[in-house]
Amino acid sequence: MLWFEGALHEGTRHGFDLADRGLTLGDGIFDTALCLGGSIAFHEAHLTRLAASAEHLGFAIDAEAVGEAMGRIAAAIGDGTIRTTVTRGSGPRGLLPPEPARPNWWIGAAPRQAGSGFAPVSLYPSDIRRNETSPGSAIKTLGYLDAVLAAREARVRGFGEALFLNTRGNLACAGTGNLFAIREGRLVTPPLSDGVLPGIVRARILTLAGALGLAGEERSLTLDEARAAEAVFMTNSLRCLSPVTAIGTTSYPMAHEAVAALSKALRGLVAEECGVAPELP
Amino acid sequence: MLWFEGALHEGTRHGFDLADRGLTLGDGIFDTALCLGGSIAFHEAHLTRLAASAEHLGFAIDAEAVGEAMGRIAAAIGDGTIRTTVTRGSGPRGLLPPEPARPNWWIGAAPRQAGSGFAPVSLYPSDIRRNETSPGSAIKTLGYLDAVLAAREARVRGFGEALFLNTRGNLACAGTGNLFAIREGRLVTPPLSDGVLPGIVRARILTLAGALGLAGEERSLTLDEARAAEAVFMTNSLRCLSPVTAIGTTSYPMAHEAVAALSKALRGLVAEECGVAPELP
Repeated sequence: MLWFEGALHEGTRHGFDLADRGLTLGDGIFDTALCLGGSIAFHEAHLTRLAASAEHLGFAIDAEAVGEAMGRIAAAIGDGTIRTTVTRGSGPRGLLPPEPARPNWWIGAAPRQAGSGFAPVSLYPSDIRRNETSPGSAIKTLGYLDAVLAAREARVRGFGEALFLNTRGNLACAGTGNLFAIREGRLVTPPLSDGVLPGIVRARILTLAGALGLAGEERSLTLDEARAAEAVFMTNSLRCLSPVTAIGTTSYPMAHEAVAALSKALRGLVAEECGVAPELP
Repeated sequence: MLWFEGALHEGTRHGFDLADRGLTLGDGIFDTALCLGGSIAFHEAHLTRLAASAEHLGFAIDAEAVGEAMGRIAAAIGDGTIRTTVTRGSGPRGLLPPEPARPNWWIGAAPRQAGSGFAPVSLYPSDIRRNETSPGSAIKTLGYLDAVLAAREARVRGFGEALFLNTRGNLACAGTGNLFAIREGRLVTPPLSDGVLPGIVRARILTLAGALGLAGEERSLTLDEARAAEAVFMTNSLRCLSPVTAIGTTSYPMAHEAVAALSKALRGLVAEECGVAPELP
């Protein structure tokens, strides 16, 4: 299902300007959200981040119209995933952005992969580094090719997702989510300056940790520190919180008290938002 | 003008699958070629690189069909630029590529910017580094957002193009082309391993240099070495060869004998290919 140019459509094919800069240059952003019982979990936060990302690229979105369309498509599908894409719109040939931009946006809905929420995941460290010098490293841009290639390699090697270090050798993120490590009773996650997306769930976890008496900290982590952690987990809007079972040859115990407490609290938060608790794997 | 799904169309809007991975994830490549007198300069080389880039991403293109369509659209426009885009095609949600891929491709034609061929250019060193650890750094992928943002900053600061160093601090390339420096009678250009596209004109220049008795060398260059060079120039398929007038606050003399000789030889090569010599600025 697709929301495009002011209306709901079945299928995904539609009249589209092939000179749209999202398609020609990756000049755009997207957002993926979880939809349960016809409601979007953390709807406002997704919309706020999308607007901030567009502003970072130098154009504005009509947040009211986008937010309303997100709600309409969520109500239409009930349970699933909502992907909102915003591009700088069409422009003449060349790199320089047209001024003013006339952004183009649409929303796609798809069923959620069964059993993906809260499911454990193993991570394979990619040789591709995340480029923390790129403004795109802190924005969910349309340029996901590194993550595609790393995901394929991780799968070939028998792992669930890729893990990225940044160009300084610090831990950055997984292919589709933020990473957290628990060490000596502290919860640590890489700072945004290490080339990390400001994840919606990431922010919730930092808040929940405080409420659970677990000291949360944003600081750079080496891969060795992550390997030596008591527990590692990954967060994103669809998986919610996925315990990491292994990073390469390093395995982690299946259950960790603090991870279980954070999972339970996050599940409660999603249930509050949507009126329905996400299923467990 | 657009070649899409087996036919020529006016305009750029067409039925398109918004689940195409080129649009959703930047999972695709493109090629830009110069068209003069109805012929594409270095047609075979463009096609060969496009096929190699697709293979690098793990899918195959129908090179015969793409090459024929490039020729058809070139004949239709006479003079201009030809952009061929190839994506991995549509797929289900998620990063993992569908197997087998069903690639999608199309070709757009546009007028050439008057006076852009062989025109001098000034370069502004960007703070964004080119990520030579990314397979995409050696392929013309759809993810051009870094180059877009750097181009905008260069323009705001009064320069023509951005210059990128890689994450190791070596010279990589300009926003839309390869870089060459002339030092002590030698022609030096960064190796592909420094995060550089295998430019079609870049390869021609290395060959022409040999024929002109100028020793050509692919090796890493620091920004300081480039600043200290006698001359610097940039190459791409549309500009052909652009003398660099300045890198930031470092200026270069307007004319350099070897650069003039290479320009003349390259112009001759294009004229041989197309039967028409490219205009001079």
